[in-house]
Amino acid sequence: MALRELVIGFDADDTLWHNETIFENVHARYRELLSHYHDTATVDRTLFATEMRNLELYGYGVKGFMLSAIETAIALTDGKIPAGEIQQLIGLGREMLAHPVELLEGVAETLGAISAQHRLLVITKGDLRDQERKLAKSGLGTHFHHVEIVSEKNEHAYASIFRKHQIAPEKFLMIGNSLKSDILPVLSLGGYGVYVPYHLTWAAERVDEMPRAEGRFFQVKNLRELAPLIEMLPTAAR
Amino acid sequence: MALRELVIGFDADDTLWHNETIFENVHARYRELLSHYHDTATVDRTLFATEMRNLELYGYGVKGFMLSAIETAIALTDGKIPAGEIQQLIGLGREMLAHPVELLEGVAETLGAISAQHRLLVITKGDLRDQERKLAKSGLGTHFHHVEIVSEKNEHAYASIFRKHQIAPEKFLMIGNSLKSDILPVLSLGGYGVYVPYHLTWAAERVDEMPRAEGRFFQVKNLRELAPLIEMLPTAAR
Repeated sequence: MALRELVIGFDADDTLWHNETIFENVHARYRELLSHYHDTATVDRTLFATEMRNLELYGYGVKGFMLSAIETAIALTDGKIPAGEIQQLIGLGREMLAHPVELLEGVAETLGAISAQHRLLVITKGDLRDQERKLAKSGLGTHFHHVEIVSEKNEHAYASIFRKHQIAPEKFLMIGNSLKSDILPVLSLGGYGVYVPYHLTWAAERVDEMPRAEGRFFQVKNLRELAPLIEMLPTAAR
Repeated sequence: MALRELVIGFDADDTLWHNETIFENVHARYRELLSHYHDTATVDRTLFATEMRNLELYGYGVKGFMLSAIETAIALTDGKIPAGEIQQLIGLGREMLAHPVELLEGVAETLGAISAQHRLLVITKGDLRDQERKLAKSGLGTHFHHVEIVSEKNEHAYASIFRKHQIAPEKFLMIGNSLKSDILPVLSLGGYGVYVPYHLTWAAERVDEMPRAEGRFFQVKNLRELAPLIEMLPTAAR
């Protein structure tokens, strides 16, 4: 079995570069802006509920977050929030979109090392243009054969990517920080999953139990551990 | 040359289904909402300028439009617009996202007729989830081999789709209502373009001159005229 037959998919946000830290910083400033109306817990709870209610309509990404944040602010202030403060919320969103991309530990060298031997994909969700811009800013683009930006990362989405790129699931390894979006659907389809936890996880991505898939599920601390792990996979997978 | 070798790309908004009419309706209600602050021309001009300024950051689609509409309303009222009216703007955007999909004339039967013989793609820009939802609502999904939702429809984007799906440009025909996004880049790459004008064109898509590409550029009134046109193409293209 040629090594090149292994296809490796990478999640992007919080797997290749920092993202949740940027959201956390914006959340803190959002709470601050609304602190003369409500306590932190109420603001957080209401914002999250609004985001979840709007997810089907808006999808993932910064623009949907901005719209939910504005809606929540209007609701939490009984419509009394001044338009100038809403403009500040729009400014927070713009800052997020314009934020520099900061790579996570070991990413650049690992991609450089393994892209010569394997076909690498990015599989991510979020705003189309925002994810493309982050990839461009990251300087990592040349390592990847294809970039798939999808509206949801579930079994259906992975199966459709497998068909499109003629990938056999048992030759596919997905690496990411979300058990729900990166690991579980891939394990279900018969692929390999490498979980690389980020120190923050958005509530909507949290999963209670670790997956069980003997020999197909792994956890690493950062991407530096990926190349040695691939070497250890059975030859059939590689 | 087998007929199946012709690949046909379809734009979606205002080519397969009505879209600009929905935006126009929302624009009218937007002007109405701001009519006690400014005249129609000022509202239109300022909104369009804001949209163009934000395009690079937000990309195409309803969510970016909503954010630009809110920003414009705040600016045009010197921050005096009440939050309740901003909530109404959010409501307008939600209506657009939830709007039923109304197919254009001849679309369903034409796709049914030609999909047996040719590989059909959707190539569209806009919000990822919104475009996927519209395609699902349209009931047209089964006619298409692939759906490509891209952040910009320029030569680079088409070239990248050609590589991904191993399409020879001289065997590719794109049909759409925007000369700028659907026709010109494809003609430049050596493909065929079929222009099907919609009765409204968003200002950002307008082009002054008709393309010149002898034997590779056509104009039709609606999709009913597409199948006979394909029959007339030189066998080499089919």
